[in-house]
Amino acid sequence: MTKVAIIGASGYTGVELARILCNHPHITLTTVTSRQHEGSPLSRVFPNLHKKVDLICENLSAAELCSRADVFFTAVPHKTAMDIVPQLLAEKKKVVDLSADFRIRDVTVYEQWYQKHTSPQFLQEAVYGLPELYRDQIRSARLIANPGCYPTSIILGLAPLLKAGVIDPQSIIADSKSGTSGAGRSALVGSLYCEVADGFRAYKVADHRHTPEIEQEINLLGGCNVNISFTPHLLPISRGILSTIYARLDDGVGQDQVRDLYREMYDNEYFVRIMPTDAFPATQFVRGSNFCDIGFKIDPRTGRIIVMSALDNIVKGAAGQAVQNMNLLCGFPETAGLEGAPFFP
Amino acid sequence: MTKVAIIGASGYTGVELARILCNHPHITLTTVTSRQHEGSPLSRVFPNLHKKVDLICENLSAAELCSRADVFFTAVPHKTAMDIVPQLLAEKKKVVDLSADFRIRDVTVYEQWYQKHTSPQFLQEAVYGLPELYRDQIRSARLIANPGCYPTSIILGLAPLLKAGVIDPQSIIADSKSGTSGAGRSALVGSLYCEVADGFRAYKVADHRHTPEIEQEINLLGGCNVNISFTPHLLPISRGILSTIYARLDDGVGQDQVRDLYREMYDNEYFVRIMPTDAFPATQFVRGSNFCDIGFKIDPRTGRIIVMSALDNIVKGAAGQAVQNMNLLCGFPETAGLEGAPFFP
Amino acid sequence: MTKVAIIGASGYTGVELARILCNHPHITLTTVTSRQHEGSPLSRVFPNLHKKVDLICENLSAAELCSRADVFFTAVPHKTAMDIVPQLLAEKKKVVDLSADFRIRDVTVYEQWYQKHTSPQFLQEAVYGLPELYRDQIRSARLIANPGCYPTSIILGLAPLLKAGVIDPQSIIADSKSGTSGAGRSALVGSLYCEVADGFRAYKVADHRHTPEIEQEINLLGGCNVNISFTPHLLPISRGILSTIYARLDDGVGQDQVRDLYREMYDNEYFVRIMPTDAFPATQFVRGSNFCDIGFKIDPRTGRIIVMSALDNIVKGAAGQAVQNMNLLCGFPETAGLEGAPFFP
Amino acid sequence: MTKVAIIGASGYTGVELARILCNHPHITLTTVTSRQHEGSPLSRVFPNLHKKVDLICENLSAAELCSRADVFFTAVPHKTAMDIVPQLLAEKKKVVDLSADFRIRDVTVYEQWYQKHTSPQFLQEAVYGLPELYRDQIRSARLIANPGCYPTSIILGLAPLLKAGVIDPQSIIADSKSGTSGAGRSALVGSLYCEVADGFRAYKVADHRHTPEIEQEINLLGGCNVNISFTPHLLPISRGILSTIYARLDDGVGQDQVRDLYREMYDNEYFVRIMPTDAFPATQFVRGSNFCDIGFKIDPRTGRIIVMSALDNIVKGAAGQAVQNMNLLCGFPETAGLEGAPFFP
Repeated sequence: MTKVAIIGASGYTGVELARILCNHPHITLTTVTSRQHEGSPLSRVFPNLHKKVDLICENLSAAELCSRADVFFTAVPHKTAMDIVPQLLAEKKKVVDLSADFRIRDVTVYEQWYQKHTSPQFLQEAVYGLPELYRDQIRSARLIANPGCYPTSIILGLAPLLKAGVIDPQSIIADSKSGTSGAGRSALVGSLYCEVADGFRAYKVADHRHTPEIEQEINLLGGCNVNISFTPHLLPISRGILSTIYARLDDGVGQDQVRDLYREMYDNEYFVRIMPTDAFPATQFVRGSNFCDIGFKIDPRTGRIIVMSALDNIVKGAAGQAVQNMNLLCGFPETAGLEGAPFFP
Repeated sequence: MTKVAIIGASGYTGVELARILCNHPHITLTTVTSRQHEGSPLSRVFPNLHKKVDLICENLSAAELCSRADVFFTAVPHKTAMDIVPQLLAEKKKVVDLSADFRIRDVTVYEQWYQKHTSPQFLQEAVYGLPELYRDQIRSARLIANPGCYPTSIILGLAPLLKAGVIDPQSIIADSKSGTSGAGRSALVGSLYCEVADGFRAYKVADHRHTPEIEQEINLLGGCNVNISFTPHLLPISRGILSTIYARLDDGVGQDQVRDLYREMYDNEYFVRIMPTDAFPATQFVRGSNFCDIGFKIDPRTGRIIVMSALDNIVKGAAGQAVQNMNLLCGFPETAGLEGAPFFP
Repeated sequence: MTKVAIIGASGYTGVELARILCNHPHITLTTVTSRQHEGSPLSRVFPNLHKKVDLICENLSAAELCSRADVFFTAVPHKTAMDIVPQLLAEKKKVVDLSADFRIRDVTVYEQWYQKHTSPQFLQEAVYGLPELYRDQIRSARLIANPGCYPTSIILGLAPLLKAGVIDPQSIIADSKSGTSGAGRSALVGSLYCEVADGFRAYKVADHRHTPEIEQEINLLGGCNVNISFTPHLLPISRGILSTIYARLDDGVGQDQVRDLYREMYDNEYFVRIMPTDAFPATQFVRGSNFCDIGFKIDPRTGRIIVMSALDNIVKGAAGQAVQNMNLLCGFPETAGLEGAPFFP
Repeated sequence: MTKVAIIGASGYTGVELARILCNHPHITLTTVTSRQHEGSPLSRVFPNLHKKVDLICENLSAAELCSRADVFFTAVPHKTAMDIVPQLLAEKKKVVDLSADFRIRDVTVYEQWYQKHTSPQFLQEAVYGLPELYRDQIRSARLIANPGCYPTSIILGLAPLLKAGVIDPQSIIADSKSGTSGAGRSALVGSLYCEVADGFRAYKVADHRHTPEIEQEINLLGGCNVNISFTPHLLPISRGILSTIYARLDDGVGQDQVRDLYREMYDNEYFVRIMPTDAFPATQFVRGSNFCDIGFKIDPRTGRIIVMSALDNIVKGAAGQAVQNMNLLCGFPETAGLEGAPFFP
């Protein structure tokens, strides 16, 4: 059994990692850290884990951590990740980093949207952990930059069209809607039940930090150099992202050809499910699972294709994809620990 | 006191009309009809109206109806409206029709999206009941086609830009999200709590019947002839619509100029509230009111403007706007009965 | 026009007071205070109030406050109220205090459940602001202790039975469920959307500070001296309280007699609505209104009566009842500003 | 691999059975039936099952069914179960019946609350499928009457106290609150999103059919013959039941003694989790799992104990408990297929 640790276990991504890992057949979760809850059983912080995870939250040095595990999930804010990850790598550990710190290959772009990068030497080495695009590189990597939740939904939705060159990348508009768990477990007025429930709004319009991450992968896939429109919204649900993506489709490209492109790319991808014709994805049908459901509609009146992509933001958009990456890193079956069907209702 | 009747009082639009009208200072609600609930007090169907509306649901002929009131709200499905409205007009009654039957001026377009029109002779006479655009015509009309909820949000959001000619109408994409009351009170599996709650999805993608209504008004405002992209989504909230609208902005048009366009058009419009710079509207801040809140963001990276427009779909998107139209029709103060501030939380 | 101020306007009770008062026909809202938001327009803190309330949040001394208004709503935490209220009274102002500080007549009991009381001299003078019980005293009072939300629902539900002496007070069990706005607008992890949504739990079991307030009024009404069971629960809704109350009913007391007791007490009470036989109240039918809906069921199998009482916790349970008290204090019609029907859905 | 069929797969209990069984290590799901959806893939009816369950809904005779499987889950309404179950038993099949038809041992009581019973000969043979009480009998049974959701929560909550004889059974009051999935997938106005969301109410007060089932087990456990008060409420959540249960505690019984009683009975029960002192269960911490979380509080002021019991109504309250029963029937490990940790948030 491979020994695994979660650094930063007291957020919603942390608890979801623990939920998935506690039933994983090939690993043992040995360590969970939390500065805030140091000394408390994780199952007191998150009573859902009672009888499932029997670990105390610790606050450990990098050296102590390295004695505990071989694979690490860093579920800490960006900037904090930058500090801890190099220390783990120096001890030959494998790391799946769930922050944004190693996702952007161009340090200038990173620093423009985030802040000064103190470990830019790892930016080229880190593999962007989207297995559907980078499976082989992930297998042999030691540092995985686990993708953002919005980027996962948008990139998976567009990849077949971009690779085939059938849409105009310049025309891409991604209108995304996320559940509130994406805002984290910080005690902020804007995340209170009464502020979010029975309501809906956009935020960080034309200004969200996932934009350069989305653009990086779109430009790599499409062999282009474009800026796209990306608008995040806050949904009154706990889990789930739906991205509605618009692009101008090349003349003469029809329903069958597009369907074939999706099939070609995803028929062997277990975690991507293509919807039947004229059925559209819904967040409630991926809830709690690592699936990304994709549907599309061609609108001959406007010459646009509308792609819809749904996933659970803390599973395929975070913890589940991280475990999928660990499985590849460690040579486990890719679906290990991730076989649970979505729960509905 | 003007005598008023609601035809079709047992849906969500009907109960909202009753809620607003029961405190209106210049009218008396004399009659409410419902085939399904004939003989029941409306306050048994909707216990919120107990002590507020003391009427029995009736099932009346057009002749009987005409003896009861001078102004009628027809809150019945399209096609049903087409049958009853001409009979009321024949008796010199004034009608605010909340169905789609008289909104589309071009009968060919109507029949393409709906069904055969049996009273096309009223299509030119009917006034599209968006007071911010057609106030004067409404004042002297006898038949008001009360706008759809999605169209109200989108048209109000775009009108200043289209009139000024600063956006490319061909580029318009409206990504709209509506609360579930928009689906009506019919007992459908898709509207059940467990199907909607904690979920989100698009529906009728590139296929929704509000599309021609939106295009009609956009083309009138912009002096153009375009098709637009419109995608409705179902939100797990009861009330509220937020439309996120994208369009290419002409080069050189800046923040101040756009703000001035909105001010010019809406500064004297009580029910339109322009958000402060970098603040965006949210459905939870218009809940229960007749306000439409509008905000925008210019994105220099893509050359697009993103306009956001929020309203309560059963107030400004239906019953409230209908009362606003009645106020104009009858010469009452435009805000009569509609002064209540939005409920938050 | 009477000049009115809200001390502590930045909580959910504050915004609701502002919402109600901005349309009140007999008063002018002159002042709103908030230490945290000093200098901000209240409509920036609560955008629902845009175009309705045009006041800046201030942080004022008692002397400054007294120059601004004649009637004050103190919507501040207990203990803070104790400090400010005596200063206002000293200047001959009228005060409706929404905290718990003046609700308990027995200082020993107060200090046992809360903390040291620094102004016990006002405990006898303060009138418990439940108009259905103390209307006459309220009319001539200068200090109103506005009741708690849970106590209002429970006391109104039981009063007719206790006055008639047909239940055993010792047997009373009140199982109450409240919307999350009752927890206030403080940024607490326990109040986050993701912690509350799609969930339900009890809290402060056999330990909630509203217990002595409920017992005080039950014992006064029933001429007894009992302790009762009271269990509050947190509902995943924003507004609303439903109390389900159990008591042993005297042998031989039947449906008609009980109904008569409720009618006798409440038929002339505008804000109490007795449900028809076998219909039960629901929070969604009082939402946004000052109504308290009451229903009951006699269970011959167990000899118990089950009383259900529903109200909106921030209207009849706080701000609305406070305005009702102000109306009585000032000689306005009791329903002024409170005529709005509940909004459904 | 044991062959298993679900009769009545198109309800919420059916889809949950399919979700659990599709990953069960010891069985193969061979057949799912649905009259309404005959001919459709189950994964079209419930898209969450796409790639997980590859079966078509069928409408089969009893004879056909018997050729398909060895163990049957009957997830059909009461009365329908009564017809089909005897036919399966006649062919030596094992049946876990999720309806109410075989739960009540006394046919007179059954007929008083439900309707005429056409197969009373099985009432004595059927084993009430609460493994924590009847594990041994379940192991050797051929017909399991799977308990109701409310009864499971209440009986598990009270069992240790009743067995020890430390409470007065006559004093029991169970105030229960259930998620809306308990109302099933029927298209009823009362189950619509807009009727349930942001609301709360009691229903079938002193009149719910789970009452005799609860009383049967309470009387067996306590060696008594009492009627209890049971009030169900409808929560605006999809999954979850919380029962708050009140009873008079014998004098002198303290915290430690009560805790010992719970430990004694449940320490070896995997699916019952006793909360730490002064922590109370919440439905959000059992969501999607087969756990029942139980907490209690002794109130010396009133002499009562308050027990709280939380479970997921369609897992431990239906499908999960049914699988637990199947595991026992078939000699599989009791937790097979049920190891998933609860989902939070």
